[in-house]
Amino acid sequence: MTEPRTLILVRHGQSEWNEKNLFTGWVDVELTEQGRAEGVRAGELIREAGLTPDILFTSLLTRAIDTANLALKAAGRGWIDARRDWRLNERHYGDLQGKDKAQVRDQYGEEQFMTWRRSYDTPPPPIADDSEWSQAGDPRYAGIDVPKTECLKDVLERFLPYWESDISPELRAGRTVIVAAHGNSLRALVKHLDGISDDEISELNIPTGIPLVYHLDPETLRPVEPGAYLDPEAAAAGAAAVANQGAKH
Amino acid sequence: MTEPRTLILVRHGQSEWNEKNLFTGWVDVELTEQGRAEGVRAGELIREAGLTPDILFTSLLTRAIDTANLALKAAGRGWIDARRDWRLNERHYGDLQGKDKAQVRDQYGEEQFMTWRRSYDTPPPPIADDSEWSQAGDPRYAGIDVPKTECLKDVLERFLPYWESDISPELRAGRTVIVAAHGNSLRALVKHLDGISDDEISELNIPTGIPLVYHLDPETLRPVEPGAYLDPEAAAAGAAAVANQGAKH
Repeated sequence: MTEPRTLILVRHGQSEWNEKNLFTGWVDVELTEQGRAEGVRAGELIREAGLTPDILFTSLLTRAIDTANLALKAAGRGWIDARRDWRLNERHYGDLQGKDKAQVRDQYGEEQFMTWRRSYDTPPPPIADDSEWSQAGDPRYAGIDVPKTECLKDVLERFLPYWESDISPELRAGRTVIVAAHGNSLRALVKHLDGISDDEISELNIPTGIPLVYHLDPETLRPVEPGAYLDPEAAAAGAAAVANQGAKH
Repeated sequence: MTEPRTLILVRHGQSEWNEKNLFTGWVDVELTEQGRAEGVRAGELIREAGLTPDILFTSLLTRAIDTANLALKAAGRGWIDARRDWRLNERHYGDLQGKDKAQVRDQYGEEQFMTWRRSYDTPPPPIADDSEWSQAGDPRYAGIDVPKTECLKDVLERFLPYWESDISPELRAGRTVIVAAHGNSLRALVKHLDGISDDEISELNIPTGIPLVYHLDPETLRPVEPGAYLDPEAAAAGAAAVANQGAKH
């Protein structure tokens, strides 16, 4: 087959800690009712667009898994195989996990706050193993060297090998792939696909719950045209909301 | 590893058509609220028993998929991989699909009714392709020769090759496997595991939503001890209720 391959990216819907404006990272919080509705809406958009995902990839985090389950059921594709991997997890936010974004901004100032949120290669301070928000000892990460903090560069370096080893072969084989993941693991993938520079990636924000669809060359898996959101207006509004997180209300 | 392997079987919770006492087969009906609660309860039993499933197998039917999602989330294992296959589907009930069990019993008599329900090798009359309850053309069965009716023997003959090719290797590799499926696909598996005769299998009823746990020899995958329900009292009551389906109320 030489037709372009279809890749659908979905960032999980609103979580309980998105709603509370807390840094979440690897903390395994639930979706809110709004987040669940976003998952269903994502599936309706997929169905309306006539897309038929054949295989699902998610992180190991409940908010991505539940978003995918809701979306695929609404799309009439709840019966496809699901593969999950920690390398699709959100960026580990280190010692910021569990902290209020606005408070961090007030305490450390705008520049430090934005550096931790958006710098490509500066991770936040590491989390202590005995922090209540550490994932050390969580059985889902058995055998994995659980990070204590990550910058976006770290996410790319753990995600891209998985993209090559596990996701790319499915696309090359002609399957339509859906990836349900997180703001930063999807930013890492979009940076790779679109060839965005280390500096420019700081400006990219991915909205929750709106499928972003790529058509990829079947051999190189490079985009044959720019990726497009299935609901562009809602996506623009959602991306602006993400950019504004931590701002004073 | 030479320890016995752990296999967990779960029949989906009550579906909308279980509640209405209709023959369901491959018709893709939803769980009821009770059925969803059974899924959660199954997961709580798994967690309380200290079982840690590593990989999920389900049919392609929503009621099994949703039961598994609810159970695994309640068990704290919602993040395991999920593989789905039509060979785990319920028995295709042919022309009986969509029909009321009590009405079929009244119309055809007790003997014919029980033959269709419980005979090992007598399938019901085939369904017409243009029946509203036929699965001909359903995209999830693309590339599959969708049956028009099945007896339990047919279910065994399609299920056992999948057991050998896909489920057994996971068990042999040391993974704890959970299978979320249906009354008759699970009866087929239990018949195989326990070496139940063609005649005696008619007496075996599997209750909904109560995990049935086997410990299997790591090489032969034969039970090292009889399979056991995690809630034996509820299982006995549930099996009696299944046996009684179609009886006059």
